[in-house]
Amino acid sequence: MQNITTPTLLLNDQICQTNIKKMKEKASHNALAFKPHMKTHQSAEVGRWMSDMGVEAITVSSIQMAEYFADHGWDDITIAFPCNTRQATAIYDLAQKVSLTLLINKAYTAKQLDQQLTTSVNTYIEIDTGSERTGLAPEHISEIKSLIKAINDTEYINWVGFYSHAGHSYSCRNEQEIIDLHKSVKQKFQTLRERFEAFEPFEICSGDTPCCSVAENFDGIDAISPGNFVFYDVMQTQIGSCSDDDIAVAMACPVVDKYSKRNELVVHGGAIHFSKETITQDGITHFGYVAKEMDNHWQIADDKSYLAKLSQEHGTIKCSDSLLSKYDIGDTIIILPIHSCLTANLMKQYQLTNGTIINQLKVC
Amino acid sequence: MQNITTPTLLLNDQICQTNIKKMKEKASHNALAFKPHMKTHQSAEVGRWMSDMGVEAITVSSIQMAEYFADHGWDDITIAFPCNTRQATAIYDLAQKVSLTLLINKAYTAKQLDQQLTTSVNTYIEIDTGSERTGLAPEHISEIKSLIKAINDTEYINWVGFYSHAGHSYSCRNEQEIIDLHKSVKQKFQTLRERFEAFEPFEICSGDTPCCSVAENFDGIDAISPGNFVFYDVMQTQIGSCSDDDIAVAMACPVVDKYSKRNELVVHGGAIHFSKETITQDGITHFGYVAKEMDNHWQIADDKSYLAKLSQEHGTIKCSDSLLSKYDIGDTIIILPIHSCLTANLMKQYQLTNGTIINQLKVC
Repeated sequence: MQNITTPTLLLNDQICQTNIKKMKEKASHNALAFKPHMKTHQSAEVGRWMSDMGVEAITVSSIQMAEYFADHGWDDITIAFPCNTRQATAIYDLAQKVSLTLLINKAYTAKQLDQQLTTSVNTYIEIDTGSERTGLAPEHISEIKSLIKAINDTEYINWVGFYSHAGHSYSCRNEQEIIDLHKSVKQKFQTLRERFEAFEPFEICSGDTPCCSVAENFDGIDAISPGNFVFYDVMQTQIGSCSDDDIAVAMACPVVDKYSKRNELVVHGGAIHFSKETITQDGITHFGYVAKEMDNHWQIADDKSYLAKLSQEHGTIKCSDSLLSKYDIGDTIIILPIHSCLTANLMKQYQLTNGTIINQLKVC
Repeated sequence: MQNITTPTLLLNDQICQTNIKKMKEKASHNALAFKPHMKTHQSAEVGRWMSDMGVEAITVSSIQMAEYFADHGWDDITIAFPCNTRQATAIYDLAQKVSLTLLINKAYTAKQLDQQLTTSVNTYIEIDTGSERTGLAPEHISEIKSLIKAINDTEYINWVGFYSHAGHSYSCRNEQEIIDLHKSVKQKFQTLRERFEAFEPFEICSGDTPCCSVAENFDGIDAISPGNFVFYDVMQTQIGSCSDDDIAVAMACPVVDKYSKRNELVVHGGAIHFSKETITQDGITHFGYVAKEMDNHWQIADDKSYLAKLSQEHGTIKCSDSLLSKYDIGDTIIILPIHSCLTANLMKQYQLTNGTIINQLKVC
């Protein structure tokens, strides 16, 4: 920690690689294609750890991210975001280089895009299994059928199956709730599978970290694309997806001020480092927990000191008496962020356990 | 809007320049030094608009930001953040190049830093005028006196006055509340001035956007350093600092999906574009308002459609019936972010009214 001078995102590469390995093995064991989502880490180096373990296909959430990973050797990429026809030129360029799979949820989108392509792309239709964000309701069979027809009527777009992000799993609060939700999602896929039997073979890909982490039975699902599991975070411990021993990232922040009467430490580490994501736990809404350090990995400290306030660059930690007595100005303190995806996106790079810095896309 | 293919932060440079000009004139009228805070825009080009109007000194919130603006010709820079002694080497380097003013709130910090300098730096002592973030209580006279003594006992650090960010003004909800709060802040400075008469001349610098925007009387204050006023935002309209005609930035987002039964449009524009800053207004907590476009500036639309949900890249707009009927997939929609500082920090660049792109620090 001697080299830390500014807010720094630490990445325990061993925990991260174990998280990837475990998920890859679960996929293999269940005969699932494994298409991890790269949005959490956004890093070619973490991608390389995946390819070294035999991962061949990936998922991303934007064309920019697809371009970055294509430039780093990936050639089977799903963009799990409703197709943005305003980016047809970029889609066209990408489709020349890699096997590209999109999400198309409207016939209009398929038609608009097709007019601007001269190379084939694949597409999933997104199914809303309960998150009410995007996708078609699985019970709207005729709507789905007419969308498949519209896609098949295009010249360059091949329909390959269904995609779903069961994001409503983020409201679960223990393993049993996740398993119950996973069962309801599988039931929806099962019904879909039966209704579209005549359209087989097609693929069903599902992707949220809580279900992929906790469930053991994936009957009716062909592929998984979780993302957050590479790092996990405090939010995932609250949901029930992981224990804090599985969390692979933590923020190291210099302590710059101290207010003993208020039991507060002030760190360099604000909203532009952590993001303003919060959780409410034990009646307290906050931006992260102070960590107990244990040989380069971290646990939530038993006395639960927490990041109570964030300005742009200031973070105010509400401290237990013991934490307050332990830290002073000039020290570095470790904080577990609530949502690793958003913190990683802001920090743009990671410091590995051996001190090496690895980058994300868009780092100068 | 034809050229918009991805989430884009629009900057109306005319409104921005008017905001700067008005604040500069208010400072001149009140014989105040004007040291605008650059943390909101983080852009050399916006800085150039300021220097073209005669601004000579600036405020920043990190050493990285100070280095960037020093590289762009600024030579009088205040880092309005409690001095981080772990960055002593960078402070040393900066102090060789520019006239540097720090915030030092502890004798220990002064001593630690002094040992690592061979060039003079200035420092304010930060005064907590009510925000309870950082700084010494103005009534703790003996504590302040002993800190001034500790600073004056160093070889390279010159005490130049007091700095305060009255951040508690963000809880105001109309002009009168801001004016009342400003009066209480001025009263604290007045008392400080009387108690430290023997230490004159020194400077008192105060910096929040609400007070600087609304107040007309700055007796007892020598310098102002507001930041957000260059752009303003929805949050500032709620506080009472500005009207929506003063807002200089807005997000243009492609519409990628539509769910009429739920009165929802889905845009490309998520937490990594807007930030997860919220406000609660009329009982609804949300991430931004859909704007009514009016010749390259924007107002909050009368029917108040709003950004109800954010994922990493998805934004879900809860629409009025009229908005829903007006927009479709492939269109671009304008959304006013809640907190322009955090949105600008994420977006890294701006598209001006004439289509030109201008950058912030750390853009490849």
